[in-house]
Amino acid sequence: MASKITGIYVPTLVPVDERGDINEPELRRFLKWLIDKGVHGLYPNGSTGEFVRLNAEERRRVVKIACETADGRVPVLAGAAEANARETIKACETYLEYGARAVAIVSPFYYRLSPEAVYAYFAEIARNSPIDVTLYNIPMFASPIDVPTIRRLAELPRIVGIKDSSGDVSFMLRMVAAIRPSRPDFTFLTGWDVVLAPMMLAGADGGTNASGNAIPEVMCRLFELTRSGNLEEAMKLQFRILDVFDTMLNPFEFPDGFRAATEMRGFKMGPGRQPSTPAQQVNRASLQKVLQCLLADLGVVEPPAAGCPPRTGNLQKDQIGQIVYEVLHELEQRGVLWKKP
Amino acid sequence: MASKITGIYVPTLVPVDERGDINEPELRRFLKWLIDKGVHGLYPNGSTGEFVRLNAEERRRVVKIACETADGRVPVLAGAAEANARETIKACETYLEYGARAVAIVSPFYYRLSPEAVYAYFAEIARNSPIDVTLYNIPMFASPIDVPTIRRLAELPRIVGIKDSSGDVSFMLRMVAAIRPSRPDFTFLTGWDVVLAPMMLAGADGGTNASGNAIPEVMCRLFELTRSGNLEEAMKLQFRILDVFDTMLNPFEFPDGFRAATEMRGFKMGPGRQPSTPAQQVNRASLQKVLQCLLADLGVVEPPAAGCPPRTGNLQKDQIGQIVYEVLHELEQRGVLWKKP
Amino acid sequence: MASKITGIYVPTLVPVDERGDINEPELRRFLKWLIDKGVHGLYPNGSTGEFVRLNAEERRRVVKIACETADGRVPVLAGAAEANARETIKACETYLEYGARAVAIVSPFYYRLSPEAVYAYFAEIARNSPIDVTLYNIPMFASPIDVPTIRRLAELPRIVGIKDSSGDVSFMLRMVAAIRPSRPDFTFLTGWDVVLAPMMLAGADGGTNASGNAIPEVMCRLFELTRSGNLEEAMKLQFRILDVFDTMLNPFEFPDGFRAATEMRGFKMGPGRQPSTPAQQVNRASLQKVLQCLLADLGVVEPPAAGCPPRTGNLQKDQIGQIVYEVLHELEQRGVLWKKP
Amino acid sequence: MASKITGIYVPTLVPVDERGDINEPELRRFLKWLIDKGVHGLYPNGSTGEFVRLNAEERRRVVKIACETADGRVPVLAGAAEANARETIKACETYLEYGARAVAIVSPFYYRLSPEAVYAYFAEIARNSPIDVTLYNIPMFASPIDVPTIRRLAELPRIVGIKDSSGDVSFMLRMVAAIRPSRPDFTFLTGWDVVLAPMMLAGADGGTNASGNAIPEVMCRLFELTRSGNLEEAMKLQFRILDVFDTMLNPFEFPDGFRAATEMRGFKMGPGRQPSTPAQQVNRASLQKVLQCLLADLGVVEPPAAGCPPRTGNLQKDQIGQIVYEVLHELEQRGVLWKKP
Repeated sequence: MASKITGIYVPTLVPVDERGDINEPELRRFLKWLIDKGVHGLYPNGSTGEFVRLNAEERRRVVKIACETADGRVPVLAGAAEANARETIKACETYLEYGARAVAIVSPFYYRLSPEAVYAYFAEIARNSPIDVTLYNIPMFASPIDVPTIRRLAELPRIVGIKDSSGDVSFMLRMVAAIRPSRPDFTFLTGWDVVLAPMMLAGADGGTNASGNAIPEVMCRLFELTRSGNLEEAMKLQFRILDVFDTMLNPFEFPDGFRAATEMRGFKMGPGRQPSTPAQQVNRASLQKVLQCLLADLGVVEPPAAGCPPRTGNLQKDQIGQIVYEVLHELEQRGVLWKKP
Repeated sequence: MASKITGIYVPTLVPVDERGDINEPELRRFLKWLIDKGVHGLYPNGSTGEFVRLNAEERRRVVKIACETADGRVPVLAGAAEANARETIKACETYLEYGARAVAIVSPFYYRLSPEAVYAYFAEIARNSPIDVTLYNIPMFASPIDVPTIRRLAELPRIVGIKDSSGDVSFMLRMVAAIRPSRPDFTFLTGWDVVLAPMMLAGADGGTNASGNAIPEVMCRLFELTRSGNLEEAMKLQFRILDVFDTMLNPFEFPDGFRAATEMRGFKMGPGRQPSTPAQQVNRASLQKVLQCLLADLGVVEPPAAGCPPRTGNLQKDQIGQIVYEVLHELEQRGVLWKKP
Repeated sequence: MASKITGIYVPTLVPVDERGDINEPELRRFLKWLIDKGVHGLYPNGSTGEFVRLNAEERRRVVKIACETADGRVPVLAGAAEANARETIKACETYLEYGARAVAIVSPFYYRLSPEAVYAYFAEIARNSPIDVTLYNIPMFASPIDVPTIRRLAELPRIVGIKDSSGDVSFMLRMVAAIRPSRPDFTFLTGWDVVLAPMMLAGADGGTNASGNAIPEVMCRLFELTRSGNLEEAMKLQFRILDVFDTMLNPFEFPDGFRAATEMRGFKMGPGRQPSTPAQQVNRASLQKVLQCLLADLGVVEPPAAGCPPRTGNLQKDQIGQIVYEVLHELEQRGVLWKKP
Repeated sequence: MASKITGIYVPTLVPVDERGDINEPELRRFLKWLIDKGVHGLYPNGSTGEFVRLNAEERRRVVKIACETADGRVPVLAGAAEANARETIKACETYLEYGARAVAIVSPFYYRLSPEAVYAYFAEIARNSPIDVTLYNIPMFASPIDVPTIRRLAELPRIVGIKDSSGDVSFMLRMVAAIRPSRPDFTFLTGWDVVLAPMMLAGADGGTNASGNAIPEVMCRLFELTRSGNLEEAMKLQFRILDVFDTMLNPFEFPDGFRAATEMRGFKMGPGRQPSTPAQQVNRASLQKVLQCLLADLGVVEPPAAGCPPRTGNLQKDQIGQIVYEVLHELEQRGVLWKKP
């Protein structure tokens, strides 16, 4: 019987070249680096990996590359959602052949389905998949999977876990209370990086964390500190991750902040697949310097040449301070702004 | 210059066979019937056409069939959204070749984008599309397109209209007020069937209405009554459509109620692409008889052999009454229920 | 039997003096002016009248003043919600004595109640009230009252209507379809000023419109045009009201924009009961000039001495234009800003 | 300088007699019992205490009784929100005289205010209150207080803490990260009982927990286990509290489930102030027996005479099982249901 899925699974970003095509050499180099940094698994085709902006062939290619790069060193959890249950089942078959440990299937999106329909969808897949299935609950983007539905689905042996990105610790407790007594092998992963430690206290077995792209060693350290019961140190680190995560998440279009931060680790992520306006590009440039200061605080990159403004211990103030500074600087250089004489 | 898009465009359903494959002969027969019934245009690959449950090849095939069947008798508005802007632009090129009048592009979904990012996405497509583009706003499923963004996008000549499924009449007024003065050619279509007449009063040029699949002649009659200013008769009809629409929309998973009703017009819609549980199937069977009574009220089908319970003029009561009746009947026949002796 | 409630009922603002106390002489002068302008009824203690920011004694006083000022010339619909059903029933008794035509009871707020509990609350009041009751549905602020609950409540003869501020025209159709056949005397009023005409097309008998404070003659004219079937003229006016309403609603804290506009009609509304920051006060001053231009367009006030910038037919652009103009002007005068030499 | 507010503050329920009046002797007996059970403070006029269903005089009376009963043994945190800032400030003055330790002010409700207006409201109160103020954030019922606003408000020395009922552990981390560096004396209390331990891990100083009415000794034990770092035992208890909390919260109208459970501890809570239908009353009776079994599991009451069905370790199943059992039993006794012969 396969071992339980635990630890930090990175929902891997996809580097693209200038034309927007997958940059395969850079993707391989990036995935190898993640494994070298100690992550417990790779999770291609997650929301962070922009699976909906890839076509069906690209999604297969990304999983293939992940399985080849992992090469047995770490397990691969492959995002397998396709246009409908039949094509999703075909993807499951393919990913088993590629060597994935399991697949993750996001709940049906676009339409908001009833719990009964969500059940029907996953049950159909679970009854036909030759590879272990984890549910993927992300209620801000897809039909929610509620606790009674998870319990019904946990009666199907092919379903071995859930990845939950609700960020709701109460929901984690409710899932664990409802499922663990009858399915101790069932795995619970959280996709909400800023509460990884509280989620593990509540019973989570690990995380699928977008931050793992930019700071894999830090996320793994948080996992280890929490697992070993060193919660005081864990929470200190959790608070430092909070700053970085919020800066990658909020002022950017998701997942562009995670792409920007990962570039600072030495990878060419490319322009992304979502077009952007000049205003967004100016904004991104200034935010990237804020991010660099935060990553420098964590010791994983050098600070910017021009230095960082003094930290006030107050993320928003620091962030706004630096943005204001950068934007004013930019505007002055473009001759748009005159300082008071 | 191409004429303005007006009237009832039907977001066409896709019949499938027992294996779930597109039933092409039935689709052709169905589209031809719609045209014969007088609809003003066909709109394949809308939400009603379950474009997200088709793969990329199937989406092309559906548009090709629509263009071939229309054959110049009515214009085709082709849903063209693909995984990303580049592939969407390719679809635009293909649909121009097929002979579509314009494409409809749904706002980016899954991720909820900022207005700036929504603008960037549509602007990128509009600048590269060789065919007229209509925006598709459906805030319950996709990133909302707000009025300032629509105004910015209306500065691009390739964008010729918007299809709005918010159902919000105030929003229609705001769009019309913001855009019409500078773009009198810009078309506004509503996707909310139960307020077609009020929407037209507010300035809409027509509708893309799911109900048009089951009752095309009725929707066209409502359009004509409203356009010609006969609002009293129009509203009488609007109220009758309300009953049918709510019954097709609410107790079913969308768009299954519209499929069920269209089957009564003589088309084999097949099982659909979303799996269902036995409980859902029992429910669907009883609802179908309710629908049949409502369609019989409109004079477009025969009532069920067993007859319809007396109408109380109260939709919900009638509906529940019939469901209860059908369910009890079903349970008795299965031997689950005993009547009080 | 009392006549049906129809027409424009103004949810009246409450002028306060510098200390925040009700400015009774100004309130009497204001209500008399509204009646002289032709409004069909007064509606004290609505959301626009900030009933939750008055204490129980003040709410009684406001209704008393309204009844005395109306003095039989127009009916009074008195907001009567108190802390609980028992005290609400007492207020009903008092308002009957004062001479009110009916009371309006907002659905329970703060807690979000289930439909069953909403029913229990209104049924308890209806069974004990000596005065006709209208339901008040405002789902953005209070527990929603759904259509099945309205139907159950319409079985109680004491309940004679509903005031709906959802702004949802489909909901109006659903209510009318469900209730009117069995209760032709039941009145439907809309609280969403920008769709008064479409709502009346859908069956509404009139409105309780906050705009009626600032432009009572305009709202009454819209009502008359629509009632008499002159929908073309009605919609032209509806579009002009849209600009004014959106400007009063959106950039202000509700109902401060309506207070600001009503001041321009010659009434001292005073500072309001919600504290404001200096930033809000600067903002309010600039917005007030925008409002003055819009009201001047409607012919009800003189334009500002400094004039209005040319209208572009585009509300948002005009509004932003004027705000930018005013703010820059303000900043220059405060010496914060230097123009490019 | 006053000591920091920490521990379990019970948002106390208000017993009423058959006529709905406050049952003062029972309230005094109940509050004394809570103090004897070891709670760290009393919090009258919270959401659990249905402050909006009391009138202004009753709210004062409830605080007076709490202060008299506490009599210096435990501090009192008095809910002080009135209809507007001026009257709220008066209540602050009164509660200082009564001997309260601090007041809690809920964010403005009914209207949804902007962050700037929320700031203005609390700042006005804080600048005029003679007693320490804690903010009360409950976004499901009242205008949300966001982190930047909390930070601005924490610059006012009179504001000494926040009670947050969002249930969002990420939000707790963000608040603590933003405020604690500059205000180490600022207190953070959570109102979400099922994640008290994770919230304390995230930095909370205690809780204001509705469950404290029914199981004060259990909530205090959870607090002590967590504070002393015994997280393994704490989480075992947290999971048991989850069952009880969810049963008190979900199937009832809030706070009726908490009233029902507290009655089992020997207090006459009375009928409550929200009317209920016969259907709700039947439901409540069956749920009360489920609650009794859950409380018996915790060892604080005796099980029902008829016993409890075997627990499956699965809350929902157990709950539904017992409800079904009770309801069928009830229906049989009423002669509504016949069993299959």
